[in-house]
Amino acid sequence: MNTIVKAKIKSIVGAENFFDSDEDRLCYSYDGTPIYSQLPEAVVFPKDDSQISELVKLANDTKFNIVPRGAGTGLSGGSIPVENSIAVVMTRWNKIIEIDKNNLTAWVEPGVVTGILQKEVEKFGLFYPPDPGSLNVCTIGGNVANNAGGLRGLKYGVTKNYVMGVEMILPNGDLLKTGGKNFKDVAGYNLRDFIIGSEGTLGIITKVLLKLIPKPARSITMLAYFDKLIDSAKSVSDIIAAHITPSMMEFLDNTTINCVEDYAKIGLPRNAEAMLLIEVDGKGSSVEEDASIIQSIFKKNNASSVRVTADESEGQELKTARRSAFSALARRSPTTILEDATVPRSELPVMIEKITEAAKKYDVIIGNFGHAGDGNLHPTCLTDERNSKEIEKAHRAFEFIFNEAIKLGGTITGEHGTGLAKKQFLEQVAGIPGIEMMKKIKASIDENNVINPGKIFTMGPRCEGSLPHNREQIKDFH
Amino acid sequence: MNTIVKAKIKSIVGAENFFDSDEDRLCYSYDGTPIYSQLPEAVVFPKDDSQISELVKLANDTKFNIVPRGAGTGLSGGSIPVENSIAVVMTRWNKIIEIDKNNLTAWVEPGVVTGILQKEVEKFGLFYPPDPGSLNVCTIGGNVANNAGGLRGLKYGVTKNYVMGVEMILPNGDLLKTGGKNFKDVAGYNLRDFIIGSEGTLGIITKVLLKLIPKPARSITMLAYFDKLIDSAKSVSDIIAAHITPSMMEFLDNTTINCVEDYAKIGLPRNAEAMLLIEVDGKGSSVEEDASIIQSIFKKNNASSVRVTADESEGQELKTARRSAFSALARRSPTTILEDATVPRSELPVMIEKITEAAKKYDVIIGNFGHAGDGNLHPTCLTDERNSKEIEKAHRAFEFIFNEAIKLGGTITGEHGTGLAKKQFLEQVAGIPGIEMMKKIKASIDENNVINPGKIFTMGPRCEGSLPHNREQIKDFH
Repeated sequence: MNTIVKAKIKSIVGAENFFDSDEDRLCYSYDGTPIYSQLPEAVVFPKDDSQISELVKLANDTKFNIVPRGAGTGLSGGSIPVENSIAVVMTRWNKIIEIDKNNLTAWVEPGVVTGILQKEVEKFGLFYPPDPGSLNVCTIGGNVANNAGGLRGLKYGVTKNYVMGVEMILPNGDLLKTGGKNFKDVAGYNLRDFIIGSEGTLGIITKVLLKLIPKPARSITMLAYFDKLIDSAKSVSDIIAAHITPSMMEFLDNTTINCVEDYAKIGLPRNAEAMLLIEVDGKGSSVEEDASIIQSIFKKNNASSVRVTADESEGQELKTARRSAFSALARRSPTTILEDATVPRSELPVMIEKITEAAKKYDVIIGNFGHAGDGNLHPTCLTDERNSKEIEKAHRAFEFIFNEAIKLGGTITGEHGTGLAKKQFLEQVAGIPGIEMMKKIKASIDENNVINPGKIFTMGPRCEGSLPHNREQIKDFH
Repeated sequence: MNTIVKAKIKSIVGAENFFDSDEDRLCYSYDGTPIYSQLPEAVVFPKDDSQISELVKLANDTKFNIVPRGAGTGLSGGSIPVENSIAVVMTRWNKIIEIDKNNLTAWVEPGVVTGILQKEVEKFGLFYPPDPGSLNVCTIGGNVANNAGGLRGLKYGVTKNYVMGVEMILPNGDLLKTGGKNFKDVAGYNLRDFIIGSEGTLGIITKVLLKLIPKPARSITMLAYFDKLIDSAKSVSDIIAAHITPSMMEFLDNTTINCVEDYAKIGLPRNAEAMLLIEVDGKGSSVEEDASIIQSIFKKNNASSVRVTADESEGQELKTARRSAFSALARRSPTTILEDATVPRSELPVMIEKITEAAKKYDVIIGNFGHAGDGNLHPTCLTDERNSKEIEKAHRAFEFIFNEAIKLGGTITGEHGTGLAKKQFLEQVAGIPGIEMMKKIKASIDENNVINPGKIFTMGPRCEGSLPHNREQIKDFH
């Protein structure tokens, strides 16, 4: 990027919001995704819609790329800079603009941290259900861009079920306003839902209207350990067959249990092959009724121990093991590759077996945990990116896992997005007509392919994204 | 359309599935939308995906238009033929292909009647909530194309909340398969949700995967009459403020109550200014608790009479008045213009007043009923399309209503779609950047603009759809 263009960018956002030192660029060269990284040409913190619009127009005119970014917790490389790009960081857009108690909605800026929003709305007896693992760090803009999931997905759905409106600067610099406080709206194409999950490739989100719901009156949390993995899987199937919809139904395997115990020292049984964490919520007697049915299902399926609590803080304590799973696994090895293969929930037991098989076959350590009720697992490979042979084995293990998931009618990503990390597998899931349709839409909206190019799919011969193992460029700074 | 093209169409679908007599064309020249109509050049009933694909390719090659169609119950003209078009009728695609009791899903063909699907899945203790007013006639394909709503929207959402997968022949003849049995899937752009509500302009839907849920264990239905309209509106606000989410919360005004009583003679109080029909469902004691709070809200707001039942068949009886509202209004005058202006639910009382004001101001009869919990009203003008002066007044009244809805942060259509009838108002809701984005996407996918052109928006100078008052063409047949 030449200095004239840089000077223009600086004049748009102001010198105080423009950074291009090596150190600053390094800090924004990666996100939560292991292995992938690339230096941006500059890092900017725009202040308002019109600055973003000007940046986008300049990018089209002078042919540089724009990569929007929130807290950078993404796990598929969606916010990693691409060649000849600037990182447009939205974390300072962190105002909760309005909580509308009559319509049960909230207008927020995209940089609001998900967990902070949840706490704020709970003050009014309201509830924002989506709770990605990174909820204390991640931001709403990134949640929308990736259609983030979380632990409560089974009963309450994911981010897209709570987005009522989006404002976004389009690739031509226009401000799109789509959606609103109407419960139902079918005027024209559903641009709002199309933007959700588009991973920052269709524009820069500047404002989000979220749907809130009444906070569930009460909940019961249950934790069960199983000596045999298969018994935990059977319990999940039995609960679904009993037509109970828990608000949480989470699974940890033996590797994960042991990593959590090493980390948190909370007395988890190291021999258990599986742990299930289940929460039911609602109001009235149905909560106890559901909890009691679930406990008898645990018993029938030989649970080795069961803990039950209706106390909220004790419930939080029971959730510690699950909430700290990723951190605990990440402690174990320098590089943690966390994936999110997802299958129809009836196929969950088969998928768990296939993941075990992959670890054996390719001789890598894979911890497994995830959202059992959704069929959304998080096989997590504990490895070291400096060991290229092992990384190669890890990639082959995941290739095996994704292929098996697809064979079972599953998908390559339940909640992390395609980004850079899953691009190569997308065709198998979306099909050629599907990918062609996506590319046509992208080309029609982003004519010069300047907004987060190379993510999800590759448009053409232009260099549009970083490849694995391109850390060379960054080594100079270490 | 020349005879060579017609012969080619006939050879694709077979002579037995091709109709072009005047009588046949007349039968498919209109849908549930008053006033609009246009004759197709031919009517075809394709048998499989490949026939549809061939038709689409031929349309591109020889430049005719394709208008897909289910039961034709649409209320915005989405399935009305356009110039130089063939009607592709999907009603014979009426198989329920699979009900998956493990994953709680159903694969269906697009011609399956919504009400029939509901009855079938209820045999297994399952539930398909979307219930548009036309559920005994309308088909799933049309429900998906229009993102149909219904009476249970407040608690259970609309069609899009239950579509997990779609198969569709694209405008280039390719078969798109998008979605699947995964609870969560963020691989690539969300084509599935973008197709929902695209009103048959992006392709012809050939298969739909629906999400089912466990049937609610029990329900309580309540019917209340109010001498004053404002008291019914206050009741609705109070119920929402009490954080209760009824499965149904429907409103009828005095005009509608009287039309229903004329029609069904079930002893409705003719002097009541408003009726509320409310259903709560679920399991356990919460159902009674909610019902009892609602009854005390009725009392506080001066309900003149209240009926309550937990008996399912008695509940159905209470719903008769609401379910027959449209038919009852339609009986009153030769032409019934049923609209679906929708506002944020806090604005419902204002919107009801504005509709009354519109009727007075433009001297037309407007009955009003609808989904009070969703802010989705159905102001219904009782008129006669042969009286062009009155039709002009009706159009002006609706223009007033739509403008007032938009001023309140509302929308021109909550569940009927834009089609032909709302095109002129779309820009006010979607904005110029929004409409431009829609048009770019349409152009990128349907290069020759042959699939249901002219619906939702007008692409260019080509003649793409019928205008009001073009019945001249058809008069010859009367």
